[in-house]
Amino acid sequence: MQVWLNGTYLNAQDAVIPATDRGFLLGDGFFETMRAHRGTVAWLHAHMERLAAHAAVIGLSSQVLPSGDDIAEIIATLCQGNGLQSAVVRLSLSRGSGQRGLLPPENPTPTIMVTTAPFTPAPSSDGLTLITAQKIRRNPWSVAGTIKSLNYLDNIVAKQEAQQAGADDALIMSVDGSVAETTIANLFGIKDGALWTPDGTTGILCGLARSFVINCAKANGVETRFDPRTPLELTEMDMLFTANALQGMRPVMALDGAPIGNAKQPQDIFTMLTRMVEGNLCNGIRV
Amino acid sequence: MQVWLNGTYLNAQDAVIPATDRGFLLGDGFFETMRAHRGTVAWLHAHMERLAAHAAVIGLSSQVLPSGDDIAEIIATLCQGNGLQSAVVRLSLSRGSGQRGLLPPENPTPTIMVTTAPFTPAPSSDGLTLITAQKIRRNPWSVAGTIKSLNYLDNIVAKQEAQQAGADDALIMSVDGSVAETTIANLFGIKDGALWTPDGTTGILCGLARSFVINCAKANGVETRFDPRTPLELTEMDMLFTANALQGMRPVMALDGAPIGNAKQPQDIFTMLTRMVEGNLCNGIRV
Repeated sequence: MQVWLNGTYLNAQDAVIPATDRGFLLGDGFFETMRAHRGTVAWLHAHMERLAAHAAVIGLSSQVLPSGDDIAEIIATLCQGNGLQSAVVRLSLSRGSGQRGLLPPENPTPTIMVTTAPFTPAPSSDGLTLITAQKIRRNPWSVAGTIKSLNYLDNIVAKQEAQQAGADDALIMSVDGSVAETTIANLFGIKDGALWTPDGTTGILCGLARSFVINCAKANGVETRFDPRTPLELTEMDMLFTANALQGMRPVMALDGAPIGNAKQPQDIFTMLTRMVEGNLCNGIRV
Repeated sequence: MQVWLNGTYLNAQDAVIPATDRGFLLGDGFFETMRAHRGTVAWLHAHMERLAAHAAVIGLSSQVLPSGDDIAEIIATLCQGNGLQSAVVRLSLSRGSGQRGLLPPENPTPTIMVTTAPFTPAPSSDGLTLITAQKIRRNPWSVAGTIKSLNYLDNIVAKQEAQQAGADDALIMSVDGSVAETTIANLFGIKDGALWTPDGTTGILCGLARSFVINCAKANGVETRFDPRTPLELTEMDMLFTANALQGMRPVMALDGAPIGNAKQPQDIFTMLTRMVEGNLCNGIRV
């Protein structure tokens, strides 16, 4: 499998970074996970916009960021070279190496890497099982948690909790006990014909799929509510689903052992939104 | 400068890690920062105990951890080879490489690295200036934040805030607005002959120096209080100081522009504790 690292195409096993890289030592960087179909990422422009926003938040000059055109070409080359019709693309960016201590170098030379892996869509009949993470909660006053930073240890711990409970993923609360998101996706509910999702102030990463879902719903006359809900209150929803830019929308079958609505008879709103998200994510394929 | 990486002594510029390392991709690991004097870390046993505790928290088997004896030998060799009388030692450990996704491999092969740098003690007459970080707060429900994990982006952002304000470091609040710690040290106050420090439930990293200071105070009949305080309330303290295992104790001269007590006429408790911490950290040197 080929990867792209700092301007060079390499075999994955030859791709190494200096052990002094601040991404490794301090988690000083961020990434994007994207879905490519036939070498193209439909939402690339939005991913690149977010990359620039993340850079601004941590004080990294936008001048060191790759251009969208360059990234598009790299992704197309990797997908072709690796023989991937549908691919998971990860663009990782760290602030490179610097002097000892927390302060970044004044003129950082970032480490930039693009990797691909085969994308396998989840079987459409499957619903996710979630448990509520007990060990960690989201923090509205965290930069690392509200951008797609390299700081994923809390998510790893929550995912381990889910695995130990035999669940697919963990639902993560905000510090106040209200529902925030899962380890890799935003969360949505449907109740009495309206959409619900946690407010952006709960410490979540406001994903591209989340914005797309809210906008699609609005364009189709479906209101979205953002009021705080406890995990227990979610079990009263007609339907729950997750959304991210990689896997699109996935229904939730059960939360903490309680069945949620009926994942095998999805709500009309869910069916409509799924078609729009999938169609858009894949440029018309799979609609 | 020589470093030790996964069993081998290397020149620093030759030390590289696979770009697939989970430390780089996800911040899946932790580290220790230690002070060595003449090749020996006085608190090594405590550092190794904490390393094991951190491993347990993230579900990493203690069998893959290096032994304290091995680390002692590595540190001695590096300090001698690098010609360092007093050194900052960093032991970094990540969960190595694995399959895509958040779940760690079942049998991880960790990346373990030991690096050294010259240790320069702060001039004893200097007091620190702090500002209260506005962009980030500590989260009591974070594993990444309450162990010495590789997830340091929030601290980097807070340190940048301090730099922009012309201060030495940032005071970080907990999500409830009470004082927690700085980006690299625990915080203490002295008021009316008693010691004060934030409670362990504020989302802080409970450092080795913090425990040592509290125990020294107790052994000398000085009570420590753990009640929540706002940054503004700290300005009423007779004295403020920071403590960590690298720099020992350092007085705080000003917080958010307000002078704190009189850093140039330290309280007796501070003088007594400083002697004990420094003496202990350096095995009798500098007392």
